[in-house]
Amino acid sequence: MSKLYTDAQTIINKSIADNMPQSAVRKALGSHKFYGKVYLFAVGKAAWAMAEAANKYLGTRVSGGVVITKYAHSKGAIGDLEIIEAGHPISDENTILGTQKILDIAQYLGEKDEVVFLISGGGSALFEKPLKGITLSDIAAINRQLLACGADIVEINMIRKRLSAVKAGRFAEICYPARIFTIVLSDVLGDRLDSIASGPAAPDLTSAEEALAVIEKYDLKLKNSIREYILKETPKKLHNVKTVISGSVSGLCESAAKTAKSLGYEPLILCSDMKSEAREIGFLLSSIACQIDKADSLKRPCAVILGGETVVHLKGSGKGGRNQETALAAAAGIEGLKDILIFSAGSDGTDGPTDAAGGIVDGQTAQNLREKNIKIDDVLKNNDSYNALKAVNALLFTGPTGTNVNDIAVILAGRGA
Amino acid sequence: MSKLYTDAQTIINKSIADNMPQSAVRKALGSHKFYGKVYLFAVGKAAWAMAEAANKYLGTRVSGGVVITKYAHSKGAIGDLEIIEAGHPISDENTILGTQKILDIAQYLGEKDEVVFLISGGGSALFEKPLKGITLSDIAAINRQLLACGADIVEINMIRKRLSAVKAGRFAEICYPARIFTIVLSDVLGDRLDSIASGPAAPDLTSAEEALAVIEKYDLKLKNSIREYILKETPKKLHNVKTVISGSVSGLCESAAKTAKSLGYEPLILCSDMKSEAREIGFLLSSIACQIDKADSLKRPCAVILGGETVVHLKGSGKGGRNQETALAAAAGIEGLKDILIFSAGSDGTDGPTDAAGGIVDGQTAQNLREKNIKIDDVLKNNDSYNALKAVNALLFTGPTGTNVNDIAVILAGRGA
Repeated sequence: MSKLYTDAQTIINKSIADNMPQSAVRKALGSHKFYGKVYLFAVGKAAWAMAEAANKYLGTRVSGGVVITKYAHSKGAIGDLEIIEAGHPISDENTILGTQKILDIAQYLGEKDEVVFLISGGGSALFEKPLKGITLSDIAAINRQLLACGADIVEINMIRKRLSAVKAGRFAEICYPARIFTIVLSDVLGDRLDSIASGPAAPDLTSAEEALAVIEKYDLKLKNSIREYILKETPKKLHNVKTVISGSVSGLCESAAKTAKSLGYEPLILCSDMKSEAREIGFLLSSIACQIDKADSLKRPCAVILGGETVVHLKGSGKGGRNQETALAAAAGIEGLKDILIFSAGSDGTDGPTDAAGGIVDGQTAQNLREKNIKIDDVLKNNDSYNALKAVNALLFTGPTGTNVNDIAVILAGRGA
Repeated sequence: MSKLYTDAQTIINKSIADNMPQSAVRKALGSHKFYGKVYLFAVGKAAWAMAEAANKYLGTRVSGGVVITKYAHSKGAIGDLEIIEAGHPISDENTILGTQKILDIAQYLGEKDEVVFLISGGGSALFEKPLKGITLSDIAAINRQLLACGADIVEINMIRKRLSAVKAGRFAEICYPARIFTIVLSDVLGDRLDSIASGPAAPDLTSAEEALAVIEKYDLKLKNSIREYILKETPKKLHNVKTVISGSVSGLCESAAKTAKSLGYEPLILCSDMKSEAREIGFLLSSIACQIDKADSLKRPCAVILGGETVVHLKGSGKGGRNQETALAAAAGIEGLKDILIFSAGSDGTDGPTDAAGGIVDGQTAQNLREKNIKIDDVLKNNDSYNALKAVNALLFTGPTGTNVNDIAVILAGRGA
């Protein structure tokens, strides 16, 4: 493996390690004065690590709790906490089961009880109980409709939260009179509290009017009963909640910049809230790489870093993820460039419904694809980036990382020929 | 008008002025030794200025010639040259008329005659004679089909040139045994000679096989006769041509950087061959602007410069252009930022089928739009950027510039608050 590839791997590993949930949880708990019995509830892809850190910190103060995380994301028992693995990105029966276990405790709490609520990415899918008369498949169908038409995460949550008995501040109402101290590991750009995990313990800042606008924007097909729920107003004031955000995509970019610098690359963080279409960012990354190659506007060796979360407007039936599409789209434009690579990776280690964290391409990738008779255009059309990148050994694997603070895309340019 | 706006205008004007065709034409002609009678043929949006400069340089050596440019792009008589204005981006009856006038001269030239052929952007539409049995509306229909499905300029030219009696090297065959000296002002990224104006005097590097791939990629609907023409092979070798490229988008970016620096902004040319979807670049520009606003990764005052030509996948029926869509899409993401603006402009001064060169937005634009009840999402959906930007005085006007070396997009950040 070339130095460039080794360095890329170091940047990925280090920036993820720097943004693991444990230290963030400890820091947040240290800032809070506890007064009674504590119940730990953790939901999200980083739930296990957050709960484990909180349980260790709080010790005997913990009277019970439940952890809901994605399948294969639990790493064993944590004290007396109940641990449930469930479906993500689509909720399943275990989601309902786990959520009900949390509610079975939460609804009987008194004013001397306190909830530590640990939220990370994936919380929207993993913490869910549909309102009366709605099924999970109703919600899943709406979710698919929204994903397919390219709605962003804020819009998806705005609709989905209104069909839930626990989202949009409703969970905080159930916990009342107990107080809730929420610690958030954010994967929502801009960190709006009512969006993260659909805000189970946050006053809802979205209005029925805005929800209606989303319905109309994408021309959503809805049953009348569901339409009525969506247009019903959500809690706007909560008196028992306190929230701390720790960990975000900015931290991810800064860690990558710091690591790149330590490896001898001049870093440039270009943005930390990109949200464009994945392949279009890929095309642009290749243009920037060509500029680095031919000119001295960015002095080599350098690392151009972009953070955020691109979107994919699904049209094909292939397998892939936004980071893999970004990397694949970049491959054509950098064909023939020497000592430059481009990677895009999700900090959670699972890009889309795949076991890869993302993709990594260089000046040789396009030719490697061509030799296997794989056409980048066709692959993008079919949203099949996983299989294309796999065929030329251009997938990035980290395994599930236990954190989730969006994605990072990097152009890494060595000294050149 | 604030200093930032004045500076933006200076950067636009200066970078266009630095890339006008006259000096490029003079330089190219100076490098060539003429041996006989010269006939001047000029096609493209910059045809008038190029012909005027060439006619002045060559003086009495010029025996005749024809200039075909876009409507309203002629600035008066040039010696004895015949000047025709015609349709662009869609060819019309004047295109046929002008092209025939060129052929009426070209087909009778002898081996002691020489052609100076001046090509600029728009040449594909402005120089055209369909093959026997095909009408302009056949070609226009295919052109619309290609534009609507998002084909890039290389693909569009690949198909269209094969339906033409003058493109794909066929014009050079008609001029034979006269020799042709071609001077190109390029608006095609990467400067592939057979793409620029569809290569009337360049050996065609595209194959019938590639053309078939485009037909299949976009599932084009074609008459059998047209399909047959497209799949017929084009000239691969020409012995009477010499070509010089002068002027390109790289020059445009470099001029912008130089001017920005002279005004006190640290310039960064990020890329000079971007070709992503216009609105997605707009979104990304706003993310980069936010990063400049909140962090010191790019030290203010600074100018981030992107060159190239974005694409628009037409879906709506509104009025606009790729530069206007880029600027409008950027407006939402920079709402509230101080002392930062973003502009995108076509160097030809006419963005899409409009009289504007592009758009210019700042932290106030989104609110200005809201106050007029204009929703950016809806406008983008309807491809109606012109009317939206016009309503808030955010269009950029230069008038037809007489040059055409792609587009430039710039984030200009002052010292800040």
